[in-house]
Amino acid sequence: MPHIHLDSDLPGIRGLMTDRPDTAAPLNALADLILRGPSPLTRGERELIAGYVSERNATRFCADTHGAAAAAQLDGGAAVVEAVRHDLDTAPITSLMRALLRIAAEVQQQAAPVSDEAVAAARAAGATDTHLHDTVLIAAAFCMYNRYVSGLATTLPTEPGYYEEAGRRITAHGYAAAV
Amino acid sequence: MPHIHLDSDLPGIRGLMTDRPDTAAPLNALADLILRGPSPLTRGERELIAGYVSERNATRFCADTHGAAAAAQLDGGAAVVEAVRHDLDTAPITSLMRALLRIAAEVQQQAAPVSDEAVAAARAAGATDTHLHDTVLIAAAFCMYNRYVSGLATTLPTEPGYYEEAGRRITAHGYAAAV
Repeated sequence: MPHIHLDSDLPGIRGLMTDRPDTAAPLNALADLILRGPSPLTRGERELIAGYVSERNATRFCADTHGAAAAAQLDGGAAVVEAVRHDLDTAPITSLMRALLRIAAEVQQQAAPVSDEAVAAARAAGATDTHLHDTVLIAAAFCMYNRYVSGLATTLPTEPGYYEEAGRRITAHGYAAAV
Repeated sequence: MPHIHLDSDLPGIRGLMTDRPDTAAPLNALADLILRGPSPLTRGERELIAGYVSERNATRFCADTHGAAAAAQLDGGAAVVEAVRHDLDTAPITSLMRALLRIAAEVQQQAAPVSDEAVAAARAAGATDTHLHDTVLIAAAFCMYNRYVSGLATTLPTEPGYYEEAGRRITAHGYAAAV
């Protein structure tokens, strides 16, 4: 049960956003920009980072929503998301994505400079400044979204197929349109 | 030295925001809303939460910027900020603010439901749903801003009086106007 009264029984961040359209607006604008705006990373790759950070933060709602959005937009679909979740070292992704996900994991862990080793590994795999910037900001942002969703003890969806539908909705319409 | 090239030598998040006005826009809109928009918490109280979380995340730039913004807007000024930094249990603040800062500390620590005990203590001190919502969101948001600023290894200001001037600028003009 959430820590605060919500007018709807919508799960996760959706109930919070329905109750607070004022805060929903910049939160969705940020999500649309970092996950769907211009970037050298594809939308699927950015959703994979978002889902991976959420998984590491054990925020089920965000992990499964962004995992589904990644699966809907990545070559390789849900199998790639599952492989990353299971073992980053062996997942069938590019060496660049592997290095960027390791950076995301460092950002998830604490607010501290990403290690020089992780940055060097990403650069060796082809990362530009923009890859590094976008990866750090996405990982940082999901440390916010995850804390907002988990901190207030929001509920999980109960309908079968909820996340797959969310992945399709996000792919087609983005975040601001979802509230 | 920052992990990525920045065109300016502006410290902390300001160099990032000058380089990336696209991402600066929703980040500043969010800061203006949660720290300066409608809330049962005063602007000074919200800056105190932001500075306290940043201090716990050891992100010097954000801790001192928002500490200065809190000092500029709180009754009691810098002495209150310093007292909270030194020992939350004895700082000269209301029982409600003490309970809300304890909630913020839980949110800073991990993405997990705030403890029922911390929520009950805040409610006993007069917290409404909106106090709880706004506290959790501010604490969560600073777990993002801190990671963005620290993760990319941004620099610290070197001019004396930088933070006091930042506190005055924020108090007078807010965040979106600062970029």
